[in-house]
Amino acid sequence: MGGMSRQTGIPRRVALLGLAGVSAAALAGVLPAVAAARGLDTIEAIKTRRSVRRYTSRPLAEADLREILRCGMQAPSACDEQPWRFVILRDKALLARAGEINPYAAFAREAPAAVLVCGDLELDRCQGYWVQDCSNCAMCMLLAAHAMGLGAVWTGIYPLADRVEGFRALCGLPAHVTPLALLVIGHPAEQPAPENRFKPERIRYDRW
Amino acid sequence: MGGMSRQTGIPRRVALLGLAGVSAAALAGVLPAVAAARGLDTIEAIKTRRSVRRYTSRPLAEADLREILRCGMQAPSACDEQPWRFVILRDKALLARAGEINPYAAFAREAPAAVLVCGDLELDRCQGYWVQDCSNCAMCMLLAAHAMGLGAVWTGIYPLADRVEGFRALCGLPAHVTPLALLVIGHPAEQPAPENRFKPERIRYDRW
Repeated sequence: MGGMSRQTGIPRRVALLGLAGVSAAALAGVLPAVAAARGLDTIEAIKTRRSVRRYTSRPLAEADLREILRCGMQAPSACDEQPWRFVILRDKALLARAGEINPYAAFAREAPAAVLVCGDLELDRCQGYWVQDCSNCAMCMLLAAHAMGLGAVWTGIYPLADRVEGFRALCGLPAHVTPLALLVIGHPAEQPAPENRFKPERIRYDRW
Repeated sequence: MGGMSRQTGIPRRVALLGLAGVSAAALAGVLPAVAAARGLDTIEAIKTRRSVRRYTSRPLAEADLREILRCGMQAPSACDEQPWRFVILRDKALLARAGEINPYAAFAREAPAAVLVCGDLELDRCQGYWVQDCSNCAMCMLLAAHAMGLGAVWTGIYPLADRVEGFRALCGLPAHVTPLALLVIGHPAEQPAPENRFKPERIRYDRW
């Protein structure tokens, strides 16, 4: 948290916010004490979060990892069923194997940790919602990591059968536990610029 | 934003944070200027967000609605495909009908607005991920609403066929657009206490 930008030497959050093009008023409100010291305003976090795929060699503190998991478990779920299960990958050989199962996650071998977010079908009481529930969980974890000054990215697993079975074998998951996504997490070694994805044409009123 | 608690007359965020049982140090850091005036720290937002199903009669400002939608569209998606589409329900007859299609959303008739979050299968290039993508989108909207002092709740639609077809008919959705969830949003008339959902037994390391 509160690291310096490698390029500019200014606090990381300031650099990020500058790139975000937020209003000067909002920037002035954010800077004095809050952003670097304690995290990030929710709306700014949502607007500035990007996928981070390059990490420094710094380990991920156990306390930070648990704070991220704690945030994930706060997600809403159908019937409050909370069908999530987690396998934390920290072993370098396992992280390298993860990047072989999913070549788009090859950078995992350079990360200090990754979280395999799984759905436990025995906990999916309101059947049919575990994918939505576990997605919510993973989304909260990505935002929490960003707010803590960490970098993270969602790499897809479910519903691709080869990836599902690959991760099931890698971690020895029982048949009722299905891996949904692998969140790769570390201290960021890249600072992707915030991106404005607002598309007003996607919005309709009352009827299509 | 920054409303007063009906019960106590103290600023709403303070009441919420008090209920959350956050540390005194964190509370002191949040209170001076930030919380009520500009939203909510990301981690606190994730930890204090609850489903809100009772609303005051106050309308939802168009600017607030667009800010929520803007936050939803910032969500990560597979291949950055952003397959989401939105139908905003503000017509009272439509909101009442929504509560008939899904009886668990009957309270929608008392809400100022609801957002039907849909997946456009023609935009689902990396096939199979639209449910996860649109869940991420909806999760960001729920957090944004909470951070703005609004109350919101996710009501489930997909994959229940009767609800999917009910909302398709209600809003005249084309065949390639599938409703995932209805987010009901308004100014809160209830303040559910934050809930600690952390379950350390859900976490394993390296292997199951």
